Amino acid sequence: MDLLLLSNSTSDEGYLVHAAQAIAELAEGRTDALFVPYAGVTRDWDGYAAQVREAFAQGGIAVQSLHEQADTLAAVNAATLIVVGGGNTFRLLQVLRQQGLLAPMTARVRSGAARYIGWSAGSNLATPTIRTTNDMPVVDPGGFDALNLVPFQINPHYYNLEIEGFRGETRDQRLAEFTTLSPDTPVLGLPEGNWLRVSDDRCVLHGPHAARWFLDATTWDVTAGPLSIPV
Amino acid sequence: MDLLLLSNSTSDEGYLVHAAQAIAELAEGRTDALFVPYAGVTRDWDGYAAQVREAFAQGGIAVQSLHEQADTLAAVNAATLIVVGGGNTFRLLQVLRQQGLLAPMTARVRSGAARYIGWSAGSNLATPTIRTTNDMPVVDPGGFDALNLVPFQINPHYYNLEIEGFRGETRDQRLAEFTTLSPDTPVLGLPEGNWLRVSDDRCVLHGPHAARWFLDATTWDVTAGPLSIPV
Repeated sequence: MDLLLLSNSTSDEGYLVHAAQAIAELAEGRTDALFVPYAGVTRDWDGYAAQVREAFAQGGIAVQSLHEQADTLAAVNAATLIVVGGGNTFRLLQVLRQQGLLAPMTARVRSGAARYIGWSAGSNLATPTIRTTNDMPVVDPGGFDALNLVPFQINPHYYNLEIEGFRGETRDQRLAEFTTLSPDTPVLGLPEGNWLRVSDDRCVLHGPHAARWFLDATTWDVTAGPLSIPV
Repeated sequence: MDLLLLSNSTSDEGYLVHAAQAIAELAEGRTDALFVPYAGVTRDWDGYAAQVREAFAQGGIAVQSLHEQADTLAAVNAATLIVVGGGNTFRLLQVLRQQGLLAPMTARVRSGAARYIGWSAGSNLATPTIRTTNDMPVVDPGGFDALNLVPFQINPHYYNLEIEGFRGETRDQRLAEFTTLSPDTPVLGLPEGNWLRVSDDRCVLHGPHAARWFLDATTWDVTAGPLSIPV
């Protein structure tokens, strides 16, 4: 199993530029990718696919979008590189569930037949559930279970700013709510610009910032390098 | 039907102080309230009830907490003032659904037998669904439908700051996702310090800030005064 889980897609350098090298290494010579655009809500899926197609073309990878396929199940079962873009995690999960593609995607990636790249909502999707997404629940996905490719939750776009005048919860307070109700499930707060490279027996944190683990009532920060999963 | 829907509970003046006058007017001489503490996650319900009990005692209102009642349904059906506190909206909805209290609460308030005060998650609960909450989906509430006391969605703690270095969605972008998928449902962004006073035929915005309506692809701001519901 080989996964690349990015916090975000856009940086000052441009769209997916900060991760171009990591994407090339994960692809390891594969020249075709299947893109899942369903997290896109306020942009149309054609336009979203075009943007990703252009970015991946820089690395010599041709992109087919799942929404253009007549037989989406067959497309998943033929893919060798599955790319899941960000947007709204609830919408992403809803459409994949409606199309019956969650279990096939898990099986395809777990078997090693396809590698997986996700960012933002696409990284949430790779975890056991979407219960640590930052997104608004704009649609009911019919259950929060996701692909369960890694044994921990991810919180993308992680930061813990206190916003002047804002009386709602900070990010750490929201994640403490999660760990209060699910004390056995670790969550990794993955900051902007960071990513995880996951293989069967190894999970490595990359990027400029410290990431933060949340488990039960404890938190601790980790810097780039191999991660011990606290389970 | 009489509702008081607050964006938030805490201000520089203290806990529920900014809304003390509005609460007294809504209570209109009622001296007993039933408090729903279920949105509290990282604090225990006893402690949450004690905090609310103290705040309401200032106005001569005695507070019973729903979690202390042997028969929660009987307590709802006897209440003349129902107070729903903030915290995590998903957890609030989950517990009320598990206890079978959603329809009885709606009926009790719609009939006019009980008045309703909510803040933050408690304001989300009063709307058709919780799909415009800011909260993290830390538990699956078994469906997003809520009390449906008003014919529009509320987004509490509304603001639209762009946060330096954050590559996720702004609040307005998140709400645009909602209106893209639900173009017929209006959403009111209710800023910190503001509240709504709702009766059968009237909805009045109070507070220092402009609130923002979101409907389909349009947004517009409104200031304190009677609201036209754009439905």
